[in-house]
Amino acid sequence: MLNVGVIGYGYWGPNIVRNFNSIEATRVHLICDGNQHALNRAQKAHPHINTTTTWQDVISSPDIDIVAVITPVSTHFELAKKALENGKHIFVEKPFTATVAQAEELIELAEKKNLKIMVDHTFIFTGAVRKMKQLIADAILGDLYYYDSVRVNLGLFQKDVNVIWDLAPHDFSIMDYLIEERPVAISASGKAHLNEMEDTAYITVHFANNMIAHFNVNWLSPVKLRTTLVGGEKKMLVWNDLEADEKLKIYDKGVDVKNKEGVYNLLVSYRSGDMWAPKVQQIEALKMEAEYFANCIVNGETPINDGHAGLRIVKMLESCNESLKDSGRMVYL
Amino acid sequence: MLNVGVIGYGYWGPNIVRNFNSIEATRVHLICDGNQHALNRAQKAHPHINTTTTWQDVISSPDIDIVAVITPVSTHFELAKKALENGKHIFVEKPFTATVAQAEELIELAEKKNLKIMVDHTFIFTGAVRKMKQLIADAILGDLYYYDSVRVNLGLFQKDVNVIWDLAPHDFSIMDYLIEERPVAISASGKAHLNEMEDTAYITVHFANNMIAHFNVNWLSPVKLRTTLVGGEKKMLVWNDLEADEKLKIYDKGVDVKNKEGVYNLLVSYRSGDMWAPKVQQIEALKMEAEYFANCIVNGETPINDGHAGLRIVKMLESCNESLKDSGRMVYL
Amino acid sequence: MLNVGVIGYGYWGPNIVRNFNSIEATRVHLICDGNQHALNRAQKAHPHINTTTTWQDVISSPDIDIVAVITPVSTHFELAKKALENGKHIFVEKPFTATVAQAEELIELAEKKNLKIMVDHTFIFTGAVRKMKQLIADAILGDLYYYDSVRVNLGLFQKDVNVIWDLAPHDFSIMDYLIEERPVAISASGKAHLNEMEDTAYITVHFANNMIAHFNVNWLSPVKLRTTLVGGEKKMLVWNDLEADEKLKIYDKGVDVKNKEGVYNLLVSYRSGDMWAPKVQQIEALKMEAEYFANCIVNGETPINDGHAGLRIVKMLESCNESLKDSGRMVYL
Amino acid sequence: MLNVGVIGYGYWGPNIVRNFNSIEATRVHLICDGNQHALNRAQKAHPHINTTTTWQDVISSPDIDIVAVITPVSTHFELAKKALENGKHIFVEKPFTATVAQAEELIELAEKKNLKIMVDHTFIFTGAVRKMKQLIADAILGDLYYYDSVRVNLGLFQKDVNVIWDLAPHDFSIMDYLIEERPVAISASGKAHLNEMEDTAYITVHFANNMIAHFNVNWLSPVKLRTTLVGGEKKMLVWNDLEADEKLKIYDKGVDVKNKEGVYNLLVSYRSGDMWAPKVQQIEALKMEAEYFANCIVNGETPINDGHAGLRIVKMLESCNESLKDSGRMVYL
Repeated sequence: MLNVGVIGYGYWGPNIVRNFNSIEATRVHLICDGNQHALNRAQKAHPHINTTTTWQDVISSPDIDIVAVITPVSTHFELAKKALENGKHIFVEKPFTATVAQAEELIELAEKKNLKIMVDHTFIFTGAVRKMKQLIADAILGDLYYYDSVRVNLGLFQKDVNVIWDLAPHDFSIMDYLIEERPVAISASGKAHLNEMEDTAYITVHFANNMIAHFNVNWLSPVKLRTTLVGGEKKMLVWNDLEADEKLKIYDKGVDVKNKEGVYNLLVSYRSGDMWAPKVQQIEALKMEAEYFANCIVNGETPINDGHAGLRIVKMLESCNESLKDSGRMVYL
Repeated sequence: MLNVGVIGYGYWGPNIVRNFNSIEATRVHLICDGNQHALNRAQKAHPHINTTTTWQDVISSPDIDIVAVITPVSTHFELAKKALENGKHIFVEKPFTATVAQAEELIELAEKKNLKIMVDHTFIFTGAVRKMKQLIADAILGDLYYYDSVRVNLGLFQKDVNVIWDLAPHDFSIMDYLIEERPVAISASGKAHLNEMEDTAYITVHFANNMIAHFNVNWLSPVKLRTTLVGGEKKMLVWNDLEADEKLKIYDKGVDVKNKEGVYNLLVSYRSGDMWAPKVQQIEALKMEAEYFANCIVNGETPINDGHAGLRIVKMLESCNESLKDSGRMVYL
Repeated sequence: MLNVGVIGYGYWGPNIVRNFNSIEATRVHLICDGNQHALNRAQKAHPHINTTTTWQDVISSPDIDIVAVITPVSTHFELAKKALENGKHIFVEKPFTATVAQAEELIELAEKKNLKIMVDHTFIFTGAVRKMKQLIADAILGDLYYYDSVRVNLGLFQKDVNVIWDLAPHDFSIMDYLIEERPVAISASGKAHLNEMEDTAYITVHFANNMIAHFNVNWLSPVKLRTTLVGGEKKMLVWNDLEADEKLKIYDKGVDVKNKEGVYNLLVSYRSGDMWAPKVQQIEALKMEAEYFANCIVNGETPINDGHAGLRIVKMLESCNESLKDSGRMVYL
Repeated sequence: MLNVGVIGYGYWGPNIVRNFNSIEATRVHLICDGNQHALNRAQKAHPHINTTTTWQDVISSPDIDIVAVITPVSTHFELAKKALENGKHIFVEKPFTATVAQAEELIELAEKKNLKIMVDHTFIFTGAVRKMKQLIADAILGDLYYYDSVRVNLGLFQKDVNVIWDLAPHDFSIMDYLIEERPVAISASGKAHLNEMEDTAYITVHFANNMIAHFNVNWLSPVKLRTTLVGGEKKMLVWNDLEADEKLKIYDKGVDVKNKEGVYNLLVSYRSGDMWAPKVQQIEALKMEAEYFANCIVNGETPINDGHAGLRIVKMLESCNESLKDSGRMVYL
C-alpha cells in the first residue's frame, strides 16, 4: 500500500483524493491546502484523512510515498523539487512546469534519485483516446493527414496563465500520445480581450512529414465544443467528447488518387462508405491512471506520461508564448 | 429589360441563368460554354435561349447589357476586360480575379466607362447573413471580439486553385460585409497532401482593434461543417448554415469585467441568459442579388459587392498564398 | 417506349412528370389539371408536352399506355376505374382509394383486363428503406420486437382527409414492405383542434406474434421529426430521414435472457456494442419506381406495390377511422 | 432540525440521504436496508450515520420525525402505514403505492394523525419543469392542444413492475403538475417480449376539453430519448431533458384560423416566428424538494406533491394495467 500526500484541494484535488483512495494500491494519507475553507471541505468529505495548511508537512512526512502536486502551475517546480529531494515519487498536475528548464531539472533529479514522475495527462486514459490510439497504431487510418482540435467554451479566466496554457495541455498531451511523429515547429496567434492574458487563440503545429495539426482554444465561446478530427489516407475519424454515446465515429471516406502525375482532377475519385462508432470503454480515466502509477512504482516501470512527456508539452506551450509575442512567427521546437 | 449574356455553364452557371431569367428586370439572351455537353444541358433546360461556344459572341452582341462571367478564376480578367471594353456591365463569379493588379485594372476601366461591376458574393444576400448584419449594425453584439469560421467537407479538388481560393472567398466576403473595420494583416498555414495544391488550411486575420478572425477550410473532412461563431462584448452568435431551421442562435452570454485593474479573477463574472433563434428570411439569395444588380444599373447606384469589395477579397487571398509560401508569416494588407 | 398521361399537376404531379420523362422507358404524353394556373406551370416547365383541363382526354387517348392519377384521394376510384376500362395501366398516388371496397373493385377489374396497378409507395424505393429491408430479410435484427414511427411537423391542413390519411400511408406502406408478418388489429386515438379533421393522432398496430407497432402523426408540431425505431432480438435500428448523412444507424444493443424461468433480473444482461451507419444509396426514389413500373409492364410482372399492397394500406386507414370514432377500440383487420 | 430515517439504500436511496443531509433543516439519523452490502456502502459514505437492517428500528425511533420510504413499490404501503401510525411524516418514493386503495388509506390515516405525506415527484422541482409551469400558467402557450412525451432507453428490467409503472410516473407527475385540467380516461397498449412484464408501451390520456396526451415508454430502445412536446394555440414548446443547455425551446409557431366555417384551407395560415430558449435554473431538484418538505412540515402547509398527487398518478397507472389487459380499451378515471 502506497501512501499519497495531496497538495492542493481546489477544483481538481478532490478528484485526485477520491481516486487514489478508491483503489487497492494506494491510500491518501494527508491533504494540504493553504485555504482553510478548502480543508474544511476535505475534512467533511473524508473525516478520516488528516489535513494541513503547511505543504512542508507533506513533503517531509516519512509515511508518504507519493506527493501529488495539484496546485497552480507556477508552484509546481518548487513543490515537486522538494518532494523529489525528500525521496517522494511525484504526480504533477498538467502542465508539468512553467518552463522547459524546470521540467528538465525535475527529470534529471528524479532519475538521479530513482524516483518516478507522472504528469496528470488524464485524457490519455479515457476509453475514447485509447481506442483512437489503437486505431492509429493498427494503421486503420493509414498515413495521417491532419489533426484538428477545437476546445472552446465560456471559460474561467485564470489569474496566471492564458487560454493556451489552460486548455491546450489537454490536446497537446492527447496528440503526443496518439502520434509517434514529433512536431518540428509551432505557431500561435491570439488576442487578449479582457485583460493581458490571451482568451482566444489558434495554434498550428508543423511536422516533418505530411501531417499538420491545429488547435482552437477559446474562453469566450457561447457554446461548448470538444471536437477533434483526424484525417488519414484510408479513413478519418471524429471524436466528439460531449456525446454521451457515439463519442467516436470512424468514416470510410476519402480521396483515391490514381496517378499523381497527369491531368489531375480526372484521376481523383471520392470514396464514401460506411460509418462506424465503436463501443468505447466507460471507465473513470483518473482511477485507471492512479492504478497505472502505482503499478509503475511497484514494478519499476516508466509511465508513458512521465516527465519527458510532460516536458514535450511544456516545450510546445513555451513556444506558443514565444510565437504569440512575435506575430505568430513559426518557432522551431 | 436588361439582356444578360452568360459565359460558363458548368456547376454554378445554371443557377445564374435560372435566376436572371426568373426576375422581371432581366432576361438571359445568350449562353456560352466551350463544352458542347454543357451547352446541350443548357438547350434542354432553356430551349428558347440561344447558345454559343464562342465567348466573343457574348462580348460583342449589341443586344447584351450585362455579361456574367461564371468561369474558372484564371479566365475572369480577360473576359471581364473585353466585356467592359465592349460597354457591358459585368457580373463576375468570386473570387473576382486571380491577382490584385487585375482587379485594380478592371475597377479603373469600369469607372472610366461608367459601367457597373458586381462580384457574386452570393452569401451576403442570404437571410442569415443579412440578419447578422442587422444585429451587428444595431450593436446588439457590442464590440466584437472574434470571428471564427469553419467550412470543411470532402471537397472537389480543383485543378488551378488551392482550398483557400476555393472556399475562403465565401467567408472572407461575408466577414467583409458584416464588419466595417478592415483587416490589417493575414497569415495562413496549410498542407497539400495529394498534389501541389493545399487541401487543408488555417487562416488568421488581424485587425487594428480588439478583433481577431480565423478561418478553417478543408477539402479532406469526413463531415461537412459550416459554422461561424461571432463573439461580442454583449452577446455572441452561432451561425450553423447546415441547420434547416434555427440557423442563427444569439446567446446572452459573456463575461462582465468590473474593473480591469485590481485582483483579476475576483472581478470577472459570468453572464448566462436566454438563447434566441430569430426567424431568418428564406429566399433564394441569388435571385435577390440579380434583382439588386439590375436596380443598381437602372438607378446608377454602386453595389455593395462591387469591384472594390471583390478586390478586398482578392487581396486577402493573394496575401494568404504569400503567407503560405513563407511559413505562415504575417502579411500586411 | 410507354406513353404516360398524368392527371393532376398540383404539389406532387410535377415530380411524377419529371421522373417519367427522365427515363428511357417512358415519356409523358399529356398533362391534365382542372386548374389552368397549374397547367400554365406545366407548359412553362415542359413546353413540348400537351396539356388539357379535361381528364377524359387522358383516359381516352389511344396513344397513352399508363395513366398516372395524382389527384386527391376522393377522386382516385373514378379516374382509375375509367382508365382501366379504357385499357390503361394505372399508377395511383397513395393512399390507393378512399375505401376498401373501391380498392377491391379496381384490383378485380385490372386482373380481368390484364392491366397493371402500381400504387405510389415512393418511400420503399429509397436507399434507406431498401437497406432496412435487406437487414431485416437477412435476419440481422433477429426476431422483431417493435416498430415505432414518428412523422410530425407543422403541416398543411387537408380539406378532405385527417392527419392519419395524410401522413400514415407513408409509414404503413414502409412497414408493409419491411415486415412479412401481417397485422391483425389496429387502434387509433386523435384529436381535431381546428376543424372536424383530426390533426394529432396515435395509432397502435397489433400482430399475432411478438411485434407491436406504433405511429405518431401530427400536423401541429413545432419541430419536424421523421424517425423510426425498429427493435429486434439481436440488433436495433434508428432511421432518421432528416439526417443528410447517417440516416440509418444499427446498434448492437439489446438484452440477453439466459433463462426465462427462475429469478428474473439476475438472468437478464445488457449487451452494448458498436454502432454502424451503413452507406445508403442516394438515388431519386421516384425515378427508380418509374423504371420499375415500366419493367413490370414490359415483362408482365407484378409490382411489389401493386393494388393488393395499396389495399392493405387502405384497410389500415379505414380501420383507423373506425377506431377513432369508437374511443380507440381495437379494430380487427 | 428534523431527523430523517431512510429505509432503502439501493439505487436512489444514496441521493435521498445526501440531500436530506446537505440542507440546514434536516439531518439523516438512521439508514436501513435489508442488504448488508448496501449498508456497507452507506457506512463508507456516511461514517457518522447509524445503520440497521431492521426497518422497525426506523419506524419506532423516538428521534425520527420523517421516514423516507425508498423501497420497491410493493412494500410502500406497509412501511408508510406503520410510519404514520408511529407519528412520522412520510416521504415516499414514486409511485406512491401499488393500488389506489392503499393510497386512499394512507391519505386518510395521515389526515387523521395530522401528518404530512410527500411523494417523491422529483422532476417537478427541476428548473425546466418549473419554467414550463410558469409559461403555461402565464398563458404564454394559450389553450393547450397536446402533451406528447417520449421516455425510452435500454432499461433495467424490473422484477415486479412493467415499464409503465417504472417510467411513466415521471411523466404522469410532470403533466399532473403542469396542467390543471384533470384527465378523464386512459388507454394503454404494450407488449412483453422477454418475460410477462410489458417492456414497450404506449399510453393515451383523454381530457374533457381540447387536450390529448400521449406517453411512449420503452425499455428496449437502442437510443435514450427524453423529449416532451407541448402544443398550444399560441406557442409550442419542446423539452429535451438530455440537452446540456437549451433544454427548453419555445416556438412562436402555429396555425391561425380565420373562420372555422367556410372553405377550410383557404383560411388556415401558418405562423412561423422566432424560437426562444429561456435560461433554466440549474439546481439539484431533490435538494429543493427536501427543503420544501421541511418547510411544509414546519409551517403546516400541504405539499403540491402530497398524497393526493401521488394517488392521482397511481390511479392512472392502475387504469393503464386495466386497459393493457383489455386490448387497450379506454378506462375512465
